[in-house]
Amino acid sequence: MVIKFSDKMNLLTGSEIRELLKLTEKPDIISFAGGLPAPELFPIEELKRIAVCVMEESGKQALQYSTTEGFLPLRKHIAERMLAKNKIKTDPSHILMTSGSQMGLDFSARVFLNKDDIVLLESPSYLGAINAFKASEAKFIEVPTDKEGMIISELEKNLGKEERVKMIYVIPDFQNPSGRTWSLERRQKFMEIVNKYEIPVIEDNPYGELRFEKEILPALKALDTKGLVVYLGTFSKVLVPGYRLGWVCASAEKLEKYNFIEQASSLQASTISQMEVSKYMDLYNLDDHIAKIKEVYRKRRDIMLKTMDEEFPEGVEYTRPEGGLFTWVILPEYINARNMALECIEKKVAYVPGGSFFPNGGHENTFRMNYSCMPEEKIIEGIQRIAEVIKKNMK
Amino acid sequence: MVIKFSDKMNLLTGSEIRELLKLTEKPDIISFAGGLPAPELFPIEELKRIAVCVMEESGKQALQYSTTEGFLPLRKHIAERMLAKNKIKTDPSHILMTSGSQMGLDFSARVFLNKDDIVLLESPSYLGAINAFKASEAKFIEVPTDKEGMIISELEKNLGKEERVKMIYVIPDFQNPSGRTWSLERRQKFMEIVNKYEIPVIEDNPYGELRFEKEILPALKALDTKGLVVYLGTFSKVLVPGYRLGWVCASAEKLEKYNFIEQASSLQASTISQMEVSKYMDLYNLDDHIAKIKEVYRKRRDIMLKTMDEEFPEGVEYTRPEGGLFTWVILPEYINARNMALECIEKKVAYVPGGSFFPNGGHENTFRMNYSCMPEEKIIEGIQRIAEVIKKNMK
Repeated sequence: MVIKFSDKMNLLTGSEIRELLKLTEKPDIISFAGGLPAPELFPIEELKRIAVCVMEESGKQALQYSTTEGFLPLRKHIAERMLAKNKIKTDPSHILMTSGSQMGLDFSARVFLNKDDIVLLESPSYLGAINAFKASEAKFIEVPTDKEGMIISELEKNLGKEERVKMIYVIPDFQNPSGRTWSLERRQKFMEIVNKYEIPVIEDNPYGELRFEKEILPALKALDTKGLVVYLGTFSKVLVPGYRLGWVCASAEKLEKYNFIEQASSLQASTISQMEVSKYMDLYNLDDHIAKIKEVYRKRRDIMLKTMDEEFPEGVEYTRPEGGLFTWVILPEYINARNMALECIEKKVAYVPGGSFFPNGGHENTFRMNYSCMPEEKIIEGIQRIAEVIKKNMK
Repeated sequence: MVIKFSDKMNLLTGSEIRELLKLTEKPDIISFAGGLPAPELFPIEELKRIAVCVMEESGKQALQYSTTEGFLPLRKHIAERMLAKNKIKTDPSHILMTSGSQMGLDFSARVFLNKDDIVLLESPSYLGAINAFKASEAKFIEVPTDKEGMIISELEKNLGKEERVKMIYVIPDFQNPSGRTWSLERRQKFMEIVNKYEIPVIEDNPYGELRFEKEILPALKALDTKGLVVYLGTFSKVLVPGYRLGWVCASAEKLEKYNFIEQASSLQASTISQMEVSKYMDLYNLDDHIAKIKEVYRKRRDIMLKTMDEEFPEGVEYTRPEGGLFTWVILPEYINARNMALECIEKKVAYVPGGSFFPNGGHENTFRMNYSCMPEEKIIEGIQRIAEVIKKNMK
């Protein structure tokens, strides 16, 4: 007898990014493949002091089980921050802590989707979200995007008539993988349509505060008058990822369902991580820390785009992100970026082939580039190497 | 239009235990309801030193993303410990770290179960596991148990003919909620049957090392010649729960599926928590710490059983656990422990009604008692109060 796994296990494979990251862990590889924050910017000294402080002041509480909802003072900090940064009016009772934002994606699928239900998402979209939704046996309709965001007429084509559309997943700020940001007008029009059809929206915003120029635009959740938007936030990109701390902000009815799934699947996020981040926000100014991150990432983005401008041949396009971690490269259609990735790894440089970001396949002439965790001289060197390989593949 | 949630959300409600715990958080209540370890035994001073040490030695790594598999030195510690304590021969490549053991339960359901597939489990069984399996729309067959464990003839009745039986879930050591431990002979017979029918077994062992007398018996996984047993371990009861660290040990083919689900649902367990626990095991002797815990819990168990012996009226039965956190009380059939719980809360004492531990209902004349986290004088006082209420309800 052969052990039978569940049907959904046939849909899941390891993330290509995580497999690639293993390949690219060797120190001599210049990797633009991951989505890692720059570890040299982690506030290690501060967090060490915080760890001591939490243990001394409230060790018993920090090391014990706690509620599924999460540590109240931290949820207060988050609510205040969401108002100040994203114009979202909320309060701690509408916030649920999770063990990283990926968990919010998994829960979203489990709360809203039956097998074969449809998720609408930007084309391309975040690979980790696609993977989370696949684990609930979802189907996908990719909605075309332009420089301003999801194209509204294309979105509306798929609403109303299609009963199995159960949610829309979007990353309006510095999207992963495209690096694009939705305009205010597009956000407003999107919410008009969403309000009309009353479809839940999962708004994933890991990078929103990493804006290098201009002002942060209101989140979709800030424009949400009917409680349709579920907002996912995380400390992974603005502080550190190692604590595994994210959150879900949603209407009471929806958040209760997320809470039930969290109880059933992991009980709660780490008590001590929550208390440490909360204490960090009591004692330090997260804005100052983010300002430092942005300064470094902005320079890295600038040098990456400048080198691409200088080195990439005509016929290669790429986005010019105003923040976040990624730019997105579109090669001529006849070049397969998955094959080219192997040539690049031979030249000791890596990116993520773009095809994986399209759940229904195709678009193999694209790739994602991360600029947050390589020093400037490596960025120049790496782009030069990729440019060489591209040129070799150009007709 | 009303937002549609997934079908499985209809099956999930908040855990009765977690709701009850909220009621019983008031300091004047004597609560035997939770399953919390005693926080006064947490090695706070040691863990504070460890936190500083990890930040100073490897802060960048500890605060960054890491692999889904988990921190290798910690998995080495775990493999050594599983051999020394549970007679399980394994190695780090067969161990996957999770954000608490509850996650291992959730993953088990997702790896093995389609909607309406059947889980065989002990009657009664752990409420949190039942809840995790419900989230995958499982059905349950409860297998009767006696003092030695699952009754083999009853188990075999449900194997072979029933194709939808996809896994067996058991807690052979100091079972939650019954406090019972399977005999060696029963373990051997169980594995004979499992080998014959080749059904995956989820062996949940959070309490195994908390044995107050006699020797730890070999785990089912130690008797597993066909790689059928998936073993779930955790640091929550032997060290602290606040880090949210558990693990899955399974054959390579099975563990790969668990890894895929973890990638899709949460990426990884906390890097810093893993490095801290690993460093704790480098620098301190976990056995010494567990010896302290056992000494305290053993005394608490003794005083609870002694007071029950003295105070509970005839016709009330309860188990005499050799370790772990719980004893299980069976009232005369005409007393409903769920109703009686309200009377008890009025008298400022709490337990968990037993009905919730039977997925198919019934057995409302039972309740679970935790003795790990109340001081001895409170145990005496609390049992006296419950005894009074029981006597009032006796015919």
